[in-house]
Amino acid sequence: MPRPITLFTGQWADIPFEELCRRASEWGYDGLELACWGDHLDVRRAAEDAGYAAGRRATLEEHGLGLWAISNHLVGQAVCDDPIDQRHKDILPGHVWGDGEPEGVRRRAAEEMKTTARAAAALGVDTVIGFTGSAIWKYVAMFPPVPETTIDAGYTDFADRWNPVLDVFDSVGVRFAHEVHPSEIAYDYWSTHRALEAVGHRDAFGLNWDPSHMVWQGIDPAAFLYDFRDRIYHVDCKDTRQRFDGRNGRLSSHLPWGDARRGWDFVSTGHGDVPWEDCFRVLNAIGYTGPISVEWEDAGMDRLRGAAEAVEYVRNLAFDKPEASFDSAFSSDREN
Amino acid sequence: MPRPITLFTGQWADIPFEELCRRASEWGYDGLELACWGDHLDVRRAAEDAGYAAGRRATLEEHGLGLWAISNHLVGQAVCDDPIDQRHKDILPGHVWGDGEPEGVRRRAAEEMKTTARAAAALGVDTVIGFTGSAIWKYVAMFPPVPETTIDAGYTDFADRWNPVLDVFDSVGVRFAHEVHPSEIAYDYWSTHRALEAVGHRDAFGLNWDPSHMVWQGIDPAAFLYDFRDRIYHVDCKDTRQRFDGRNGRLSSHLPWGDARRGWDFVSTGHGDVPWEDCFRVLNAIGYTGPISVEWEDAGMDRLRGAAEAVEYVRNLAFDKPEASFDSAFSSDREN
Amino acid sequence: MPRPITLFTGQWADIPFEELCRRASEWGYDGLELACWGDHLDVRRAAEDAGYAAGRRATLEEHGLGLWAISNHLVGQAVCDDPIDQRHKDILPGHVWGDGEPEGVRRRAAEEMKTTARAAAALGVDTVIGFTGSAIWKYVAMFPPVPETTIDAGYTDFADRWNPVLDVFDSVGVRFAHEVHPSEIAYDYWSTHRALEAVGHRDAFGLNWDPSHMVWQGIDPAAFLYDFRDRIYHVDCKDTRQRFDGRNGRLSSHLPWGDARRGWDFVSTGHGDVPWEDCFRVLNAIGYTGPISVEWEDAGMDRLRGAAEAVEYVRNLAFDKPEASFDSAFSSDREN
Amino acid sequence: MPRPITLFTGQWADIPFEELCRRASEWGYDGLELACWGDHLDVRRAAEDAGYAAGRRATLEEHGLGLWAISNHLVGQAVCDDPIDQRHKDILPGHVWGDGEPEGVRRRAAEEMKTTARAAAALGVDTVIGFTGSAIWKYVAMFPPVPETTIDAGYTDFADRWNPVLDVFDSVGVRFAHEVHPSEIAYDYWSTHRALEAVGHRDAFGLNWDPSHMVWQGIDPAAFLYDFRDRIYHVDCKDTRQRFDGRNGRLSSHLPWGDARRGWDFVSTGHGDVPWEDCFRVLNAIGYTGPISVEWEDAGMDRLRGAAEAVEYVRNLAFDKPEASFDSAFSSDREN
Amino acid sequence: MPRPITLFTGQWADIPFEELCRRASEWGYDGLELACWGDHLDVRRAAEDAGYAAGRRATLEEHGLGLWAISNHLVGQAVCDDPIDQRHKDILPGHVWGDGEPEGVRRRAAEEMKTTARAAAALGVDTVIGFTGSAIWKYVAMFPPVPETTIDAGYTDFADRWNPVLDVFDSVGVRFAHEVHPSEIAYDYWSTHRALEAVGHRDAFGLNWDPSHMVWQGIDPAAFLYDFRDRIYHVDCKDTRQRFDGRNGRLSSHLPWGDARRGWDFVSTGHGDVPWEDCFRVLNAIGYTGPISVEWEDAGMDRLRGAAEAVEYVRNLAFDKPEASFDSAFSSDREN
Amino acid sequence: MPRPITLFTGQWADIPFEELCRRASEWGYDGLELACWGDHLDVRRAAEDAGYAAGRRATLEEHGLGLWAISNHLVGQAVCDDPIDQRHKDILPGHVWGDGEPEGVRRRAAEEMKTTARAAAALGVDTVIGFTGSAIWKYVAMFPPVPETTIDAGYTDFADRWNPVLDVFDSVGVRFAHEVHPSEIAYDYWSTHRALEAVGHRDAFGLNWDPSHMVWQGIDPAAFLYDFRDRIYHVDCKDTRQRFDGRNGRLSSHLPWGDARRGWDFVSTGHGDVPWEDCFRVLNAIGYTGPISVEWEDAGMDRLRGAAEAVEYVRNLAFDKPEASFDSAFSSDREN
Repeated sequence: MPRPITLFTGQWADIPFEELCRRASEWGYDGLELACWGDHLDVRRAAEDAGYAAGRRATLEEHGLGLWAISNHLVGQAVCDDPIDQRHKDILPGHVWGDGEPEGVRRRAAEEMKTTARAAAALGVDTVIGFTGSAIWKYVAMFPPVPETTIDAGYTDFADRWNPVLDVFDSVGVRFAHEVHPSEIAYDYWSTHRALEAVGHRDAFGLNWDPSHMVWQGIDPAAFLYDFRDRIYHVDCKDTRQRFDGRNGRLSSHLPWGDARRGWDFVSTGHGDVPWEDCFRVLNAIGYTGPISVEWEDAGMDRLRGAAEAVEYVRNLAFDKPEASFDSAFSSDREN
Repeated sequence: MPRPITLFTGQWADIPFEELCRRASEWGYDGLELACWGDHLDVRRAAEDAGYAAGRRATLEEHGLGLWAISNHLVGQAVCDDPIDQRHKDILPGHVWGDGEPEGVRRRAAEEMKTTARAAAALGVDTVIGFTGSAIWKYVAMFPPVPETTIDAGYTDFADRWNPVLDVFDSVGVRFAHEVHPSEIAYDYWSTHRALEAVGHRDAFGLNWDPSHMVWQGIDPAAFLYDFRDRIYHVDCKDTRQRFDGRNGRLSSHLPWGDARRGWDFVSTGHGDVPWEDCFRVLNAIGYTGPISVEWEDAGMDRLRGAAEAVEYVRNLAFDKPEASFDSAFSSDREN
Repeated sequence: MPRPITLFTGQWADIPFEELCRRASEWGYDGLELACWGDHLDVRRAAEDAGYAAGRRATLEEHGLGLWAISNHLVGQAVCDDPIDQRHKDILPGHVWGDGEPEGVRRRAAEEMKTTARAAAALGVDTVIGFTGSAIWKYVAMFPPVPETTIDAGYTDFADRWNPVLDVFDSVGVRFAHEVHPSEIAYDYWSTHRALEAVGHRDAFGLNWDPSHMVWQGIDPAAFLYDFRDRIYHVDCKDTRQRFDGRNGRLSSHLPWGDARRGWDFVSTGHGDVPWEDCFRVLNAIGYTGPISVEWEDAGMDRLRGAAEAVEYVRNLAFDKPEASFDSAFSSDREN
Repeated sequence: MPRPITLFTGQWADIPFEELCRRASEWGYDGLELACWGDHLDVRRAAEDAGYAAGRRATLEEHGLGLWAISNHLVGQAVCDDPIDQRHKDILPGHVWGDGEPEGVRRRAAEEMKTTARAAAALGVDTVIGFTGSAIWKYVAMFPPVPETTIDAGYTDFADRWNPVLDVFDSVGVRFAHEVHPSEIAYDYWSTHRALEAVGHRDAFGLNWDPSHMVWQGIDPAAFLYDFRDRIYHVDCKDTRQRFDGRNGRLSSHLPWGDARRGWDFVSTGHGDVPWEDCFRVLNAIGYTGPISVEWEDAGMDRLRGAAEAVEYVRNLAFDKPEASFDSAFSSDREN
Repeated sequence: MPRPITLFTGQWADIPFEELCRRASEWGYDGLELACWGDHLDVRRAAEDAGYAAGRRATLEEHGLGLWAISNHLVGQAVCDDPIDQRHKDILPGHVWGDGEPEGVRRRAAEEMKTTARAAAALGVDTVIGFTGSAIWKYVAMFPPVPETTIDAGYTDFADRWNPVLDVFDSVGVRFAHEVHPSEIAYDYWSTHRALEAVGHRDAFGLNWDPSHMVWQGIDPAAFLYDFRDRIYHVDCKDTRQRFDGRNGRLSSHLPWGDARRGWDFVSTGHGDVPWEDCFRVLNAIGYTGPISVEWEDAGMDRLRGAAEAVEYVRNLAFDKPEASFDSAFSSDREN
Repeated sequence: MPRPITLFTGQWADIPFEELCRRASEWGYDGLELACWGDHLDVRRAAEDAGYAAGRRATLEEHGLGLWAISNHLVGQAVCDDPIDQRHKDILPGHVWGDGEPEGVRRRAAEEMKTTARAAAALGVDTVIGFTGSAIWKYVAMFPPVPETTIDAGYTDFADRWNPVLDVFDSVGVRFAHEVHPSEIAYDYWSTHRALEAVGHRDAFGLNWDPSHMVWQGIDPAAFLYDFRDRIYHVDCKDTRQRFDGRNGRLSSHLPWGDARRGWDFVSTGHGDVPWEDCFRVLNAIGYTGPISVEWEDAGMDRLRGAAEAVEYVRNLAFDKPEASFDSAFSSDREN
């Protein structure tokens, strides 16, 4: 079988788990990349209640769906973030937010990520996808001037907070796949290098390759795959479409998704500027055999239409390598 | 229902109206943008003979087709043109051409455009698409040197000739949608600005957005939509494909359509360089809800094949906006 | 005389005022855009002590230098910023920083900007250049999701804090020229539109056009000049050079200036990607007659060499428009 | 009927002729461009044994397939090559390789090409496609310095060796279509000009247009068609996809097909950078009416899937020209 | 001596001949390309009055200037133009305009071009530069539809009117160098081909290569030189700078020179988008040895500054080819 | 003192050593990169005759020139090449060519390279620049199909032949800087990687960075510098100018230097497409402090003019890094 094509459920958390299973199956997905919010997955129950975990898998199987990875971006985000504010309150489970005191939030988020690793193990999957948060993202403009020591401290803070979490990942045989993304410690090529260094290139910490934010930053997503080939733990297919007319900018003016004045926007997979075929071919070349997950987001398209179209698009392009090479045909008559 | 997709009948005037209705319906169009030539629409009869107008609509309805706009490019062209010559004789109705004396032709053309407004009203549609002609287009190269007063006079001539026509449009509740096009008073971004100024930005005068001539002039058709968003009265989807190899030029050497030495050519919608998806997304963003009409022209493809392919292409890309936004899914478990 | 070419002294504040006057004069500058830090200009003294102001001008005149604008970016930055932290402490005068309590810092910064207006008036110049700071810059990535109300509140905060400052500007006949820049309320095309709206397009608030941050954001600096032509109060020539190789990114990985892994960097005027000639020609076309100031910054070049080279570069390109038009020559023999 | 779409069997020589006929027919091809290796076509038997030739055509016809051309690249390669080495031994029939003494190999290859012409005639086809080989290809880098006399001698050698072969082509009414390709005497635009001159522009020597090697050499395949329009004897649709990231190079580092570090690679027709639609439109414009053959090669895709997809892709784009022009519709009511 | 660098005096006709000689000499020009208007050159006197011609040359020689070509664009324009109108009256000598009856104007213009050939002969120069005019330029937009017979007739009209003029050129040993330019019969690559065909490729009709209008039409001026290498009779260095921002268009909206909303404009040689170095290198490669003339026009720069800067720019780039080749150095020690 | 700027004497070997010293000094060079051919440097004498070596240095010093590296491309070329033919005879010293038997030539070339290392040591320089030759370059087109074992064998052959040579380099404290170049074992990015692996990344084998062949191969010369930063032993500034018009190709049709139909050509440093400023900035960033050598070659320019212009161009751009950073100026008043 070719690599499974899954649907990331993060943008569908308002749809109940079972209904989404039914729809995803009808659209043609092979499985789900299950988000740990909405009613899709309660990591505490999954980690502690074997029945809950088995129930989740059973429902998936009823719909012919597989599970290879779970995702907890929203909680991971809070582990290193500074400031912690209303934005986090809006996306965190109540027991993680608690009284909202920032350091307490960060610590509870770290604990929840450990629980997430245990939930993954209980579900029989070896990959947790997520965000790391960052104490220094807010200094990205580097003005007012930021001393190098401050930047150094940001990477150290990341390592200090995540190493204990990753220890739990190691202990349960699960690995963390960080999604390279603005607002995180690693958001581009060189910050990814530095983040990997900060945790000593330990195996527990790898990457969820999502090219959507590479495109507008001018980063080559296919070259990224090749260079970090030993750290590609998961693949998310989110697409970005750029429209630069001399007025719309790369930073998009604090405008909401779907506004015609943004320089770029998320679009249904295949409608944007990600060079998908190049990337799928490099994935083949580096021997990636994990799931290819559709992260669907498009403020300009109905999602029911989009999710169905996207799986077809990806299945068509994410073809397997052949087994034999061509040149062999040229010499087929050598026995003559 | 999404925005209707119509077929502009101008390039099909050799096919009888009823036969074209049948074909358009079979190809999957929602309606027609009816040309006022061939036997498709006789504006004098439509304006005066209620039975004729009702018959036209009845035939359309029999084939499940709607009507939202009519087009009279050929007559509009003669309102301001100078010179008036054989080219006009070849495309004008005999009663407008008359004896061919230029000023008489222009006056009769203006009267015919008033009649066209009345025909539209009689047919129950609120938009007439067309050309304006221009007294100064022939000076586009600006050599031999053209005094600014001559250019000014050209815009004034346009306003003087069209304002009385537009008064009739106003009186019958119909608006004129000028198609931005070489040979016309408004053929690019800044000439459109100036033409709108010349008629005092009156509501009766708006635009039929057709990107085919913007592409080779280097004008961004999506930005055009945004900037003139309050004047987009109609949309025509004609496509242009460029092939510049250092020899083929933008002005295309007086060569006929389909010649391989032209720098650009009209092609079936979706086969050219118009950034259709960007444009349809901007149309959504600015709230355009009118018809999207296929103006099909391709000297290199059979039109029967092309018309069927084009409606499918457009319908696939001109999708509606969704109702809810995405971020909401992230907070769905806040009640936990 | 053509438009004066000045040197912005902000990056030279470690060189004493008089020495810098001497050097700038030798390099060939016509004047200075005086920074309100280092020993270059003490706004409190300038505002209150007529002798100090006169002395400043006298020193300039001794070196044949003019003064058309003063700059107080560092204090302006603190007016709206959130968070206020060590970075501000490092750049603010001690009396503005005070005990560092954020809201107090912001209020003292606002007062200091009023003083800066008065200083400008005392020095006989009508323009103060600077930054505004921003309460919402830190949300530029828009993740975790930011409610539109938060963005709205950011622009309101800006207006609320700056309107009283601008009232003082009005009262002393000076105008504020905001430098469009990351970390500020207006940092690109559309955020500039919105910021101008937020203060009701009042005349006291205009722009210091500095293209260096437009280049890497994909914003056309020449089109920016044309569209905001009535708000171009001052011009700063800072240049940016991009080097995208698929790995170096637009956000530049929190790397310091001069690092080869950055996607872009500031360079000596004329060594980068700003289309200077286009911009100077548009400045002529829109009738800008103010100073053209070199903001020199290049982590890869010695500044003494650079400042001398830059003034020559700018003087060579920032030529004036001619008085007569060309076509006239063609008709010169009409009297024959 | 539109132009036939054929499959070049060179890369399928390991599949027995009859099985390949069956598959090609199922995939939707109109015919085959038969390779003279594997068991597909034995040129000696075809030239001498009328029953063999008739049997080949009979099998094709049973599967509804036509035959318009045969191909003998591998033998043609040896006619001029220097050095002759193991690479040739691996691809030549045993009776052509013989003892491997270079000059003997070249002479036997020339004889075999004469036989190929006779085989074509016996099969009733008028075109043989192939390579020429080259004595000077190895000097392409022009270092160590190569005297012009050496280059001249290479073209003379080509003419001297091929003219006698082409005489046989003339005598049996068949023409040779050289495939412009690295390793050959004509591999780009100007070397094609020179090769045509070398054989005096004789009609027996024309071109098999295959754009795959033009793309990475920076040669415009559509302009090539137009300029050599009287020499386009056959069309092969092989596609090339480029991926330049600053590290992968045009010469591709002696890396095998499918390696992610190559600058370009062959891909299934329609997956690469050949501007197919432009080329098919120029083919129409220059009046080419011969077969359009799919040369399928893609180290990253299963060939069974690819061959089926490619014929559909080509059939969709290689549409015929219409019969009437458009402007005629505008004047349809002139009889009114 | 390298090729002479001359100044075309057409845009300086308001400056008296002798004064212009003085200035051109001071700026560093080697000679003039003398315009036949203003007081620079009276072709009737030059053709008939040997003393006048000798006086012109004497004045040039006094200032160390040479003369290799004269230019009569303005009269040539009227030979084929239609319509003939106020624009022509503004630029023609009174005796050519006469009563302004179009056909009479055309005939007198043709006679004046014959006189121009005789004037050139009398001055001892072998090249007259100019325009042809065109009866069909006004149909460049090809709408309303233009029959091919009309286009054919335009080229025939050109040949009919110019052949008798060129007969006189032949008889006095002078050749005509048409400047490829909008408003003329030949204005791009393919119209130049057709115009050359129309006059049977007679030697009397060649080209003045001026790349300024090629740039915005997308025509490669260096390839143009190579392809028409046997017809390059003269070289004019006029430069064009493009500024496309999605709004400014290629046709430039009937806006005057220097307007910031034009898509392109003439600029001082070296300030635009003409690839001068490529072109000068191709001129060397094709063996062009005639004058290189600066046609200076820039609505945004003072012409006195510009003319001096331009000659320096051109002299710096229009270097000669060396005599020996490089590879020879590698073998210099072969006698060892 | 900034990094020295030297002239590579390889293309000047027909000019006697002393005369070239005089000229180079007058042009403004700081030293020479001495070629081991012509009469510039006899490596046998230099290795064995201390007086000869001292004399060479003395002559250089008399002209104020330094020596940091010597070059023996021509002999190095023969170490691995296959075939060995007339081209080698034309460029090798007679005692290396001998009877021309290929394996003998290769062995003598290897010995001569050992002698070259000893000559360098005798002259007190630590770097020898050169080529390696290659047994597999001729297979670059990879057709007829080349088995991977053949490619592997080519790299092994390189290591086997060069390791003994490099042992001598090590023993005398000199390193070899291979110039990445077509015809050599390492000619692009990935072949350089592989060549370094083949010799076990030993320190004796590094690179002479010459970007001229990277440009037309699509390789980023600045990224190349960064990635191989620990192997940049020397810098050669040779420039390449590309002119692709759809006909001129990357492989340049076996055409001689200076032919207008080539796709690229060598040009005087600064006249081509190498991004020199980016490269010099990266050289600063990676801490390169060795000589920057002008390798001058331009078939279209007189070399006497060119050499003088090139040193000025390079000196102007290869500026040093400053000592202090900019941000410091912002905090200069912190003591207030």
